[in-house]
Amino acid sequence: MDLDSSPLALPFPDMPAISGVRLRAVQARYKDWDRADLTFAEFAPGTSLAGVFTKSACASSEVELGRTQVKAGAARALIVNAGNSNAFTGYRGREAVEAIQSQVAEALGCTPSQVLVSSTGVIGVPLPKEKARAGIEAALEAKECGWEDAAQAISTTDTFLKGAHASAMLGETRVDLCGIVKGSGMIAPDMATMLGYVFTDADVAPGFLQEALERANAETFSCITVDGDTSTSDTVLVFATGKAGNRRIEDWNSPGADAFAAALADVCRRLAHLVVRDGEGASKFITVRVAGAASNESARRIGLAIANSPLVKTAIAGEDANWGRVVMAVGKAGEPADRDRLSIAFGGIWTAREGNPAEDYDEAPVAEHLKGRDIDLAVDLGIGEGRATVWTCDLTHGYISINADYRS
Amino acid sequence: MDLDSSPLALPFPDMPAISGVRLRAVQARYKDWDRADLTFAEFAPGTSLAGVFTKSACASSEVELGRTQVKAGAARALIVNAGNSNAFTGYRGREAVEAIQSQVAEALGCTPSQVLVSSTGVIGVPLPKEKARAGIEAALEAKECGWEDAAQAISTTDTFLKGAHASAMLGETRVDLCGIVKGSGMIAPDMATMLGYVFTDADVAPGFLQEALERANAETFSCITVDGDTSTSDTVLVFATGKAGNRRIEDWNSPGADAFAAALADVCRRLAHLVVRDGEGASKFITVRVAGAASNESARRIGLAIANSPLVKTAIAGEDANWGRVVMAVGKAGEPADRDRLSIAFGGIWTAREGNPAEDYDEAPVAEHLKGRDIDLAVDLGIGEGRATVWTCDLTHGYISINADYRS
Repeated sequence: MDLDSSPLALPFPDMPAISGVRLRAVQARYKDWDRADLTFAEFAPGTSLAGVFTKSACASSEVELGRTQVKAGAARALIVNAGNSNAFTGYRGREAVEAIQSQVAEALGCTPSQVLVSSTGVIGVPLPKEKARAGIEAALEAKECGWEDAAQAISTTDTFLKGAHASAMLGETRVDLCGIVKGSGMIAPDMATMLGYVFTDADVAPGFLQEALERANAETFSCITVDGDTSTSDTVLVFATGKAGNRRIEDWNSPGADAFAAALADVCRRLAHLVVRDGEGASKFITVRVAGAASNESARRIGLAIANSPLVKTAIAGEDANWGRVVMAVGKAGEPADRDRLSIAFGGIWTAREGNPAEDYDEAPVAEHLKGRDIDLAVDLGIGEGRATVWTCDLTHGYISINADYRS
Repeated sequence: MDLDSSPLALPFPDMPAISGVRLRAVQARYKDWDRADLTFAEFAPGTSLAGVFTKSACASSEVELGRTQVKAGAARALIVNAGNSNAFTGYRGREAVEAIQSQVAEALGCTPSQVLVSSTGVIGVPLPKEKARAGIEAALEAKECGWEDAAQAISTTDTFLKGAHASAMLGETRVDLCGIVKGSGMIAPDMATMLGYVFTDADVAPGFLQEALERANAETFSCITVDGDTSTSDTVLVFATGKAGNRRIEDWNSPGADAFAAALADVCRRLAHLVVRDGEGASKFITVRVAGAASNESARRIGLAIANSPLVKTAIAGEDANWGRVVMAVGKAGEPADRDRLSIAFGGIWTAREGNPAEDYDEAPVAEHLKGRDIDLAVDLGIGEGRATVWTCDLTHGYISINADYRS
């Protein structure tokens, strides 16, 4: 089916080329469609790798292999297949990934473990090996493409293309970070993947890159939710070519380490927000800010309980400042809370304070805020110093239409 | 708003009177409506009490008091207020409950702790004490009513009235158990409650009654979900008047203990199913059977992860045997699972076996099954002996209409 672009869509940004990264996108025809669906990114020798993956106990072969590959920390190529997730396909799925790795390793003169593979699309159908082989052959001959082409080629049911860019000064050296992402919740029939890639010319040791990514991920991709459903293939990878010529970042004491980590978190946060903005059926982008919790992790869990509550999400879709449902979601989170210290605000206006409806509550400005596209919901538990911010979208008829009205 | 009766509704059953229980229903006018909204059940002296309550950290005063009352194990009256949940109302909410308890205790010559109170409806508005006082005065004068009247008086946005009956032979003595319940998920704007009550003439010690209820609850009310949202007021109470004259059940070794526990579980299961059948927007009743898990509790958690997944629920609404989404839900449950041992069946027909699509899969009978009202989804983890059954309904446009399209 063809979906209209999300009302929360943002234009694809201008993003500079990254030295040491060559992008190509070709047609492997994993589905019967006329579009590029195989993305091939080649990296200069010496490129550092970091990655975070779904916690699903039923992860795809690509994810299982990737978890091992990031430990070695070196990458020469990334292949992304769109239209087939290769998940739940047993040993045949694994063979298909290994065949791609061998073919690319031979062509580039590297080891198979330096070739990362991601796949997104239908579950339960092994990736067709011949189509992959022909696609990679074509990619090795193809001209380079730009970021927007790559963002297009990795997409499936996304309603707009998603990219983000940041730069940082490491001493006197400017480094750039360019990211692309695909995903719009758990996507239409049998599609199930959030895939994100960040490319930088910074020179960064793999150990530090992994640490910085995990830290960024904890407060960005791990703090978004569309429907609470976790894919079998969720993956975020970072590739650092080292071509910018900065003094290599080895650890948090290296000059520029904080600036690089901040830029990486910035790109991750913007990519994460774009996924929420393309949430299935989304009409409002919701920021849930939790403060006063027992700990930061407790605040994040409470934020996700609110952000995943169908009753909170439908209330906001209905532009209803229904703080009773927020109380309910806080209560069910299984985290420390005290009903009589809990306060709740919409758009910066307290509707409930310390366990009671706010005395001087004026509904008019709250109603006005809820008519907008960007909704701010704040909760103060009043029991500690823990805080977290979580992002989600509302739950509308559009979500049901996308996921129930059409057949796979 | 007025809702059509659920397509999954069942007729209210014939249920016998329970000796030692007097029911009355009167109009306290907690809302501007013309219906009974205060239910008063009076119990004979010596009636045993048991109860289970929401785990919400933001529970109502009624629930906080109830948790203490069941420890004493004795009840002389139950008051249920419909139209106002009295939740999130601070000390004023608590005062309102205590006023009701004092008034009833004085009239019946019992202690306030023997008077149970439940309230259901809008959150954040203290229960109006004067309306409650006048309602109770009227109830003390009122004629007795039947089960269906009581089920009506405790309901809020329920689309049909819910009751269940079972009997058991304890030696030569027949005992009856009659239950009523209200709830249809987390119900329309600001309503948030599942309330269930079981009344029996059996003579049962409070300690055993509590144990039997907790056991029944674990496999009935704790195994249903409509939208994964947990109310601040969920309550199930059991009252045993002892009027049947059986030899008192003191513990599991007492004659008839198993028969009584089985009958109690039967009533609880049927009441729980009725709540799912009135799930907001429900068009299909879904039984999720999980086997081969690491433990029974692990099986229950996996079952709930499936039953709460918006993608699984929308797929079934769309009559789509989308087992990829079931794989996803198993994977995200955070419980032991092995992708390559997982099998999934719809309507008794295996669609996936041990990590691969079923070789001889014939979609036609599965598609036929999915067109029905009662859907059977089975998952075999293949790693242990744990099993559980969980019940839910599908997720449809009706849910969004009820919760987003109407304003509170």
